[in-house]
Amino acid sequence: MRNLKGRLDLCSINTATLGHREPLSLTIDRIARAGFGGIAPWRHEVEKANVADAARQIRALGLSVTGYCRSTYLPATSREQFAANIDENKAALRDAATLGARCFVMVVGGLPEGSRDLSGARAQVCDGIGELLETARDCGVPLALEPLHPMYAADRAVLNTLAQALDMCERLDPHRSGFLGVAVDVYHCWWDPALQASIAAAGQAKRILAYHACDWLRDTRDMLLDRGMMGDGVVDLSAMRESIECAGYEGLIEVEIFSKENWWRRDPDEVLRICADRLQTLC
Amino acid sequence: MRNLKGRLDLCSINTATLGHREPLSLTIDRIARAGFGGIAPWRHEVEKANVADAARQIRALGLSVTGYCRSTYLPATSREQFAANIDENKAALRDAATLGARCFVMVVGGLPEGSRDLSGARAQVCDGIGELLETARDCGVPLALEPLHPMYAADRAVLNTLAQALDMCERLDPHRSGFLGVAVDVYHCWWDPALQASIAAAGQAKRILAYHACDWLRDTRDMLLDRGMMGDGVVDLSAMRESIECAGYEGLIEVEIFSKENWWRRDPDEVLRICADRLQTLC
Repeated sequence: MRNLKGRLDLCSINTATLGHREPLSLTIDRIARAGFGGIAPWRHEVEKANVADAARQIRALGLSVTGYCRSTYLPATSREQFAANIDENKAALRDAATLGARCFVMVVGGLPEGSRDLSGARAQVCDGIGELLETARDCGVPLALEPLHPMYAADRAVLNTLAQALDMCERLDPHRSGFLGVAVDVYHCWWDPALQASIAAAGQAKRILAYHACDWLRDTRDMLLDRGMMGDGVVDLSAMRESIECAGYEGLIEVEIFSKENWWRRDPDEVLRICADRLQTLC
Repeated sequence: MRNLKGRLDLCSINTATLGHREPLSLTIDRIARAGFGGIAPWRHEVEKANVADAARQIRALGLSVTGYCRSTYLPATSREQFAANIDENKAALRDAATLGARCFVMVVGGLPEGSRDLSGARAQVCDGIGELLETARDCGVPLALEPLHPMYAADRAVLNTLAQALDMCERLDPHRSGFLGVAVDVYHCWWDPALQASIAAAGQAKRILAYHACDWLRDTRDMLLDRGMMGDGVVDLSAMRESIECAGYEGLIEVEIFSKENWWRRDPDEVLRICADRLQTLC
């Protein structure tokens, strides 16, 4: 396993960690100044600014883009809406290419409003990813399927385990083009009894495109916005990174913390300092 | 699939559904008066009353006991604490026998306070269930391992999928004694991509000891106490019961709803009326 001590160049910050409180250009500057090697920006902030400008600034500061967050949800109640979702994702993929993103993060979407058809929604996701794969190849940006914690199955993602995501990868991309893989996020996957086996299989298939770190707080108060800083929760982060790296992952470790009542209220530079410290000593 | 219309004798009420606001004897009366065929009481209310009296009342009213809730959590930070946890469960198993319970519901416990050793906690659970199995056989009350939703992995149960629970059953009870199985709860399992396969496997092994119904609300506000009434959420309950019954389950359908802000504030008889209605038309 790589030693992260003094190696912030191996670490990346997902801009959500700072709570999206400032214009993207300031956030990019802060992250670079703090010594990190990568950044993962979100569409709503990139689209509010100018994609080419953001890409230039990121490149000039020597940051790599560990992921572009995130896809428009795929499942829909009508063909028209589904097609519109695909189109939005294609446009975002072109922006991901402009940014030089290592992957486009696919949070696939939950059940369409009013639906109880979970397997139908999963089938739509499979179709949608299939359609996007060609664009991903054309743009040179791999799709990273991110299985989300099962508590988001209704409203955010019907893709809920790494095994399920890998199964979809194998069905849609059996020849392993390099343009379809997974994003492994500690928060979503830490509980999974099949995690070790799934990580090994993902590595074997060269599908691990991103690794997201944070922590699960024992006393989680909010299902969406109460993630923990590494070290403050129950996850054995060092064991988890070891599995990922044993499976062949050589990319950056990206910190992604949604934390409305705690980290999003603190000074952004302080948050980055603590991220840097915890990454080097605990992850 | 059985038709539940006019068949409340096939339906049971877990007393948590009424919010534990009244003495157990009143709750037993209400449930019987409403026409249900079964009840699943909780230890804290049984232990506060007198077990033999409760058993007599339940029997006199013709109710069956679809489950006794629930085990003392198993994982511990010391051998002494672990042994104490086992002893408490043995005592509860004897009460379950007095009540004539069809199973003792095993909510196995989360990580011990301060621990990050998830696989260690899972190993403790396996050891603990192994120790309890003999007592279960002596008492004539099967242990129903209840996989809990992954969002409870830290603090309530390190057993999180049906596949994981079945795997433990096979390891501990390869000859299928009839004293080790699973409780399948809609709330905990509905999202699982492997659910169909796991239910079929559980049925094949004759391990389905209980089936708990409620619903998952799309806009869940509390991780513990915001379960939905059947029909108010996103789960295809009829499809779920069909799988369970196709797999050979012939027991009762037990309603278990934790709902602090909604159902626990309503009149208990109204709650029972709505349960009866939804069971007969939607489940």
